[in-house]
Amino acid sequence: MNPQTGAGLLITFEGVDGSGKSTQAALFAGRLEQEGVPLLALRDPGANAISERIRALLLDRALAEMSPWSELLLYEAARAQMTGQQIIPALAEGRMVVCDRYYDSTTAYQGYGRQLDLELVQQANRIGSCSLVPDVTFLIDVEMEVVRRRLSARASAADRMEAAGLDFQDRVRQGYLQLAAAAPERVYLIPGNRPIEQIQSHIWHLFINRFQRHLNRPGEENA
Amino acid sequence: MNPQTGAGLLITFEGVDGSGKSTQAALFAGRLEQEGVPLLALRDPGANAISERIRALLLDRALAEMSPWSELLLYEAARAQMTGQQIIPALAEGRMVVCDRYYDSTTAYQGYGRQLDLELVQQANRIGSCSLVPDVTFLIDVEMEVVRRRLSARASAADRMEAAGLDFQDRVRQGYLQLAAAAPERVYLIPGNRPIEQIQSHIWHLFINRFQRHLNRPGEENA
Repeated sequence: MNPQTGAGLLITFEGVDGSGKSTQAALFAGRLEQEGVPLLALRDPGANAISERIRALLLDRALAEMSPWSELLLYEAARAQMTGQQIIPALAEGRMVVCDRYYDSTTAYQGYGRQLDLELVQQANRIGSCSLVPDVTFLIDVEMEVVRRRLSARASAADRMEAAGLDFQDRVRQGYLQLAAAAPERVYLIPGNRPIEQIQSHIWHLFINRFQRHLNRPGEENA
Repeated sequence: MNPQTGAGLLITFEGVDGSGKSTQAALFAGRLEQEGVPLLALRDPGANAISERIRALLLDRALAEMSPWSELLLYEAARAQMTGQQIIPALAEGRMVVCDRYYDSTTAYQGYGRQLDLELVQQANRIGSCSLVPDVTFLIDVEMEVVRRRLSARASAADRMEAAGLDFQDRVRQGYLQLAAAAPERVYLIPGNRPIEQIQSHIWHLFINRFQRHLNRPGEENA
């Protein structure tokens, strides 16, 4: 039961590029579907016409002179649209929302990675998320050496990795670890240097242990 | 002397659509140029490639489902880019920056007009303006009846006016009046239902009375 909406759960997946978080988010959503749980799977930034337009701006390499504050605020604008248009209505209908990235990404990338003032980043996060807080966040963590090895197999991702720099990526990872340490009741640290199925199973068991009652839905017990 | 940069002045013009603020901003910039003052004239949102792309999103009528929070954050993203890329460097070079709208517009339109939480709007304004505060703001104020009469001559503007509703426009105007009352040392209230030249002269004299020494630039006294 989400205390903010009295209904569905918001479940987010976080981690650096190459950590495997998108794979795990997709597998988790698939497992929920198998269980017959009504759900909405999203990626941030994106998932609706306005947020996709903003995403396109953020990824446009012709706009290389974008200031870090403008970048921060564009991520928040995309998030505010997705939150208001999709997440809040879905939660109100009692659906589970699985989101590949949410505001912890902004804290990690813009706050720790780009080293913007963390208090201002948190204020921006509160506005962009309409004060919504995930019910649970799975942070897939892998050492930078493993990430580098994985990404070297994907040319475009490797380029991005190189462009941003390894120091940047390492600051992002350290930021994520600090977030998990500061909010252990919400952010579960998942070691990501293991076989995909093992990670999936770990996440599913953590989830079930805590939220089992959300899978036994009223009216469905005799179905 | 701008206390934040030790150099130029940031001068902003505010008011509802149809108040005449853009006309007055242009006339004021022209007068500064006559005086040989190095200056940069901008409009917010806009004035650089990234901010213009964001402005296009904001004005795209196909995106009618845009949430008020996303709208707010897009204005701030455009402002952050303009502030970091153009305003702060110009001020540091000792130029005067004349800006047609700045963050008071966001307080008036999104805060009072759309009735978003004013504290959150102020936080967003602080991030979008990189904590910069205008040295002086000229708020051109006219009664709604006058605005309506003026805008009926401009078909597109009249459409926008009708679309947003007169109640909305009136809330924006009342918001501006509250801003002026709360910060009289910065925001000068300029009655706008007078001949253009008379308003221009009023603004110029207020400006000169306060900032005369900025027009006598070192090294130019014997020129």
